[in-house]
Amino acid sequence: MTAPTSPTSSPAERTPVVIVGAGPAGLTVGNILRAASVDCVVLETESREFIERRPRAGFLEEWAVRALERRGLGDRIVEQAPTHTEFEFRFGGERRRFPYTELTGHHHYVYPQPLLVTDLVREYADVRGGDIRFGVRDVEPHDLDSERPSVSYTNPETGERRLLHCEFVAGCDGARGVTRTALPPEHATVARHDHGVGWLALLAEAPPSSDCVILGVHPRGFAGHMARSPEVTRYYLEVPAGDDPVNWPDERVWSELHARLAVPGTRPLTEGPLIEKRVLDMHNYVTEPMRYGRLYLAGDAAHLVAPIAAKGMNLALHDALLLADALIAYVGKGDDSGLRGYSDACLRRVWHYQEFSQWLAELLHGPSSGDAFRAGSATARLRRVLDSPAAAATFAELFIGKDTDH
Amino acid sequence: MTAPTSPTSSPAERTPVVIVGAGPAGLTVGNILRAASVDCVVLETESREFIERRPRAGFLEEWAVRALERRGLGDRIVEQAPTHTEFEFRFGGERRRFPYTELTGHHHYVYPQPLLVTDLVREYADVRGGDIRFGVRDVEPHDLDSERPSVSYTNPETGERRLLHCEFVAGCDGARGVTRTALPPEHATVARHDHGVGWLALLAEAPPSSDCVILGVHPRGFAGHMARSPEVTRYYLEVPAGDDPVNWPDERVWSELHARLAVPGTRPLTEGPLIEKRVLDMHNYVTEPMRYGRLYLAGDAAHLVAPIAAKGMNLALHDALLLADALIAYVGKGDDSGLRGYSDACLRRVWHYQEFSQWLAELLHGPSSGDAFRAGSATARLRRVLDSPAAAATFAELFIGKDTDH
Repeated sequence: MTAPTSPTSSPAERTPVVIVGAGPAGLTVGNILRAASVDCVVLETESREFIERRPRAGFLEEWAVRALERRGLGDRIVEQAPTHTEFEFRFGGERRRFPYTELTGHHHYVYPQPLLVTDLVREYADVRGGDIRFGVRDVEPHDLDSERPSVSYTNPETGERRLLHCEFVAGCDGARGVTRTALPPEHATVARHDHGVGWLALLAEAPPSSDCVILGVHPRGFAGHMARSPEVTRYYLEVPAGDDPVNWPDERVWSELHARLAVPGTRPLTEGPLIEKRVLDMHNYVTEPMRYGRLYLAGDAAHLVAPIAAKGMNLALHDALLLADALIAYVGKGDDSGLRGYSDACLRRVWHYQEFSQWLAELLHGPSSGDAFRAGSATARLRRVLDSPAAAATFAELFIGKDTDH
Repeated sequence: MTAPTSPTSSPAERTPVVIVGAGPAGLTVGNILRAASVDCVVLETESREFIERRPRAGFLEEWAVRALERRGLGDRIVEQAPTHTEFEFRFGGERRRFPYTELTGHHHYVYPQPLLVTDLVREYADVRGGDIRFGVRDVEPHDLDSERPSVSYTNPETGERRLLHCEFVAGCDGARGVTRTALPPEHATVARHDHGVGWLALLAEAPPSSDCVILGVHPRGFAGHMARSPEVTRYYLEVPAGDDPVNWPDERVWSELHARLAVPGTRPLTEGPLIEKRVLDMHNYVTEPMRYGRLYLAGDAAHLVAPIAAKGMNLALHDALLLADALIAYVGKGDDSGLRGYSDACLRRVWHYQEFSQWLAELLHGPSSGDAFRAGSATARLRRVLDSPAAAATFAELFIGKDTDH
């Protein structure tokens, strides 16, 4: 946190809130602030085109969509997003549907992140007249532990160094952003967990082979299937941590998918060219507290959850809703209770989702761990979810995110 | 499995079933066989007086007591054993009752193992006229993979080597018995899990400080409380694995118990002389299959579950009930379906209980693990059990053992 010094600084501006990062969290905060007439500036290192196309998954939990709707941000989701109400476990040659909507009364909206970001940018910049600056370089927060923090950045067109004085900084710039690193280690603990495996994420130019998500639990490793469009299907394969996609030629991928997802009597998977192969790290972290001085973190800047239970975007929205309300209460009425309680309120849901994600990960990864005790326990866990109505209800609540307040 | 050869062998005897070990599993098998007029011999290395007094805990799940009752073996339990219907979590200065009987309609009977063993020996030897030989030495099974197995042992009074020809051997001699080691490693896998902590088990000459079991979850480690009698209380303290009781003078024990179980507004624990201090290993194993040739394992000889959820004796009884019925069906009617399905039928419950025990262990040990991620997840798990009715119902079912068939 050095003082901002640059030979080419232009005159400083003032705004109550600087939001670093135009992902779902940052744009949600910005939209809600604008609706309450609280000024803010959103800084984003990428271009608008880039963030509107960046491929990311998107399972939105119903409570999150309802909350966005109440802020005037969810209409297109409700109109356009397909809903998911069940998935299928495949294991030991069996297939078992898990009807989580029937169990909870709630469902998922499938709305990939680029669609949500497109909606939120349009609403913020084009409808609500919000200030958003794309392609900025070298964003740097300053004096976060004072009452007069600021954020500097380089204007990409002029090369000029700019300075924004503010009251608050919302750190919404994700796992690789600068705001995470602005928390001095002595003021925060970062809890970490590594699943010790990778997921090979694949996109196939092939029609889906089922009408729902499939979770395959197999001694050779987890395999997943989910429809992306009538022509494109997302697959996952559990692979060793740090594995290289070059080790996975198409033939090997399909052979492994067939082996792990096969159930006698079902039609085989429809093959097609593989247009994407990436190995995802399966690790988690949680930063506590999610605040340092006048900096408040939201979304992946504060916590990462491996994409095992599709929780990341939902947590980001939960943070953003709380942070926006807390900022409005303070800036508008001087009420700081929301800001004081922000970190604890976010972390309750964060830890619930982390715990659940890890529990589900063990169910999926245990059978292929090579450890007979983990394998036996994981199989018992899976059978209980399928055979005990109480266990099924608990699992369904967590899967749809109904367990905690929102 | 060498052939029995001894210069002092006396003439061999024949009996359909040799039961090795007079614990809850072996004596239950013996009693049920006797009631069906199937002959058997129970071999026990200790004396009758010893096994009737050997101190062991005893939380019997209701289904197990009902099953014993149906075999004429449960009347004294139902008449005499106190029932437990709830316990109390203490954590973060809070106390929360967990009323598992209210949630499931089922309760525990508290009936220490020596009482159950006393009942079962009396019924087997004195009422049903069963053959039981105490104090035997050097028990050795032979030819288990043939149709004519046998068991030899040394008669403690004469020093003579005796040989029992049989059709089946029931291995009920516990974690340190000989039948476990009679399974050739190439015919069975042993899944193992170590919790990485110890429990210091304490008996205090002090009245209980609560009317129910207390599970204390604390950053310094788990602590437990349970009434033994109006004058004696059992306490547990989580300690480093392999810790020595000499490291725990009375003063340190009480100081630690006060710290971990304290809740503002509750009366402090009543102290008293500590008459027992043992460090329990917290580890588990499961042998699969629970059979080799004509040897069938039951109870701790097949699987050990750390005493975290009080499951061990219940699993032993579950095995014994299945094994006795299977042996009777085969010896009486030549029906071998029970024997063929024995291992799988036992292991379903074994793995459910192992998985649950490990899940509960993580809830109890995570906060003191020194790992911030484990601590955060464990706290979320505890809060969910207390706050979500579905999660509470699932936990209660597993705690009382209602989840699976019996």
